[in-house]
Amino acid sequence: MPQERYARGLAKLEEIDGEAGTRVIDSLHDIAPDFARYLIEFPFGDIYSRPGLDLRSREIAVVAALTAMGNAAPQLKVHIGGALNVGVTRDEIVEVIMQMAVYAGFPAALNGLFAAREVFAARAMEHPG
Amino acid sequence: MPQERYARGLAKLEEIDGEAGTRVIDSLHDIAPDFARYLIEFPFGDIYSRPGLDLRSREIAVVAALTAMGNAAPQLKVHIGGALNVGVTRDEIVEVIMQMAVYAGFPAALNGLFAAREVFAARAMEHPG
Amino acid sequence: MPQERYARGLAKLEEIDGEAGTRVIDSLHDIAPDFARYLIEFPFGDIYSRPGLDLRSREIAVVAALTAMGNAAPQLKVHIGGALNVGVTRDEIVEVIMQMAVYAGFPAALNGLFAAREVFAARAMEHPG
Amino acid sequence: MPQERYARGLAKLEEIDGEAGTRVIDSLHDIAPDFARYLIEFPFGDIYSRPGLDLRSREIAVVAALTAMGNAAPQLKVHIGGALNVGVTRDEIVEVIMQMAVYAGFPAALNGLFAAREVFAARAMEHPG
Amino acid sequence: MPQERYARGLAKLEEIDGEAGTRVIDSLHDIAPDFARYLIEFPFGDIYSRPGLDLRSREIAVVAALTAMGNAAPQLKVHIGGALNVGVTRDEIVEVIMQMAVYAGFPAALNGLFAAREVFAARAMEHPG
Amino acid sequence: MPQERYARGLAKLEEIDGEAGTRVIDSLHDIAPDFARYLIEFPFGDIYSRPGLDLRSREIAVVAALTAMGNAAPQLKVHIGGALNVGVTRDEIVEVIMQMAVYAGFPAALNGLFAAREVFAARAMEHPG
Repeated sequence: MPQERYARGLAKLEEIDGEAGTRVIDSLHDIAPDFARYLIEFPFGDIYSRPGLDLRSREIAVVAALTAMGNAAPQLKVHIGGALNVGVTRDEIVEVIMQMAVYAGFPAALNGLFAAREVFAARAMEHPG
Repeated sequence: MPQERYARGLAKLEEIDGEAGTRVIDSLHDIAPDFARYLIEFPFGDIYSRPGLDLRSREIAVVAALTAMGNAAPQLKVHIGGALNVGVTRDEIVEVIMQMAVYAGFPAALNGLFAAREVFAARAMEHPG
Repeated sequence: MPQERYARGLAKLEEIDGEAGTRVIDSLHDIAPDFARYLIEFPFGDIYSRPGLDLRSREIAVVAALTAMGNAAPQLKVHIGGALNVGVTRDEIVEVIMQMAVYAGFPAALNGLFAAREVFAARAMEHPG
Repeated sequence: MPQERYARGLAKLEEIDGEAGTRVIDSLHDIAPDFARYLIEFPFGDIYSRPGLDLRSREIAVVAALTAMGNAAPQLKVHIGGALNVGVTRDEIVEVIMQMAVYAGFPAALNGLFAAREVFAARAMEHPG
Repeated sequence: MPQERYARGLAKLEEIDGEAGTRVIDSLHDIAPDFARYLIEFPFGDIYSRPGLDLRSREIAVVAALTAMGNAAPQLKVHIGGALNVGVTRDEIVEVIMQMAVYAGFPAALNGLFAAREVFAARAMEHPG
Repeated sequence: MPQERYARGLAKLEEIDGEAGTRVIDSLHDIAPDFARYLIEFPFGDIYSRPGLDLRSREIAVVAALTAMGNAAPQLKVHIGGALNVGVTRDEIVEVIMQMAVYAGFPAALNGLFAAREVFAARAMEHPG
């Protein structure tokens, strides 16, 4: 049964964050392999696998929170990508980030918008179509 | 036209935050009446009135952000109420707050849950249904 | 095996936080019972149960972090109690909190010291020695 | 010469924060008397005694910072009082706090304004003239 | 009248932040042009245009706040430049940032000082006179 | 006697932070030489020189706090090095940082782990033995 939780978490991580998620996991193998496991199990195996809230809403929530906190740029970028992966549009992501000016100030929103531009540009290069 | 912005903001504030919103506005009249006007105009007249994101998503975003920041309990409570007002269910609010344990730690999520319980209890007394 | 993790977490929670810990768990039953389970499983069943760092050091780490963050007073108090429970002395707790003036400013340290005084006083009433 | 630093700091603390400052110092005597000494020596004996910036500007800086951080309400109130003591007007304090909506969000500014109202009201009772 | 507010904000932005301000505005055109407008209208058209506090004090307030928050380095640099533009001296800026060690810790003050050095050096290259 | 405090602080800074500490001091000479002195005197001459808590525990406390705050990466790296210097093992440092996922969220812990990997790698190059 713990394997179930791990497998469920890994599938959910790949569904949401795609390659960016697996890169985070890989990057932990030499420094803290157990933390890679916890990251799969608790956030993705437990929380994101809960049925009570759709993934679109969950990604809106995390983009909002990380923009507002303003101290985790790499993770914000991963989740802007995650939001796109689960169907949040670019315009909706921009709306969420702009809204954070109200709750965390204009600098937090500006830095969130610049992160979004970077992610959008990287996507455009990957999928130029 | 500035009056339009103000009127639109006031209507939006009432739609989202209801009485709790007008109480905030009233509470500013003696100390900073202009700030009451800004609060109506920019967050509600400008941001919340934008068509690009539904109010449900906006309230999910703000509940997430204020839970994660952990330093604005009164405003978190107002927006938990606001989320209920625009159709986010209690269970969904609890999901958003629990998810913040991943991004801002368990204490932030715990304090968010206790805020939600307070708001839910106050609602139950008002609408004993 | 998930039951093992839960049981191990619950034992660890009781070892560290004592009654204050079980009060937190109980307080979640009506609002978010699953979160009570996660709180037992991940922080206590996974992290605090790891052999690589003694509980004394872990409680020093959390008292430092929560003092520095300055936005989770109830949890700081629980962990000041937890630090006492695992053998950190009052003087050592005061040292850790004072040290946080260097990293998070004097207000954070002051509020940490006032939290410590409250916990120490409550202990003195329970164990008037 | 260390006594000089202490004496200079104590005089500066009294000049800026008045009774509220000495209350903070007194409140530390049972829990961390050395911290009371550090608080007098470093912030007030070293920093506030520097000639390069007037006290008015220093109190504007600290009211801005503590409003923006939003996690040190007691110290914010002491320094709103300190700002009044060194000649910043109520209107100027309100301006500084409102400005923080831009940098730290509306909730931080709102909570700062409510702190200011409390300090202003307490002053009005002390000096009803 | 909304045009007035925009024009007033743009003039104020240019007065305070100079070229660095217009660069921020330009950088938003592809990702969130409406946010560029809000940034001109609310912070600069509304707040900075208020007569109740001089620009020198306002820039001292924002340098203090962004140093203390420690999570918005680009905006801190823009406003260190803005402080110089409205007549705050380098020495006064350094005083404000050093003072933040008291309220937000030594790391926040150190990172603020390093930001100031960068801005001062860039100015020296532009105006080598 | 102030010289004693300075000398004691400088010795303690070198004991804990080694070359990384002196580099910080040197980097302040052109922008804020007095701040270099304060940094030696208060954190190291006063706080770290106190007998009530061993240096191992102090470095665990600061690694925890800076990981949790998440906005002072350069100082976190200096103190991960400092922790190694006073006998905290790499595994213990990794444990402390992982534990912060509980109190400040997974992004804070991830960024702390990446900082640790960088410090560990730099050490391996200096002492390849």
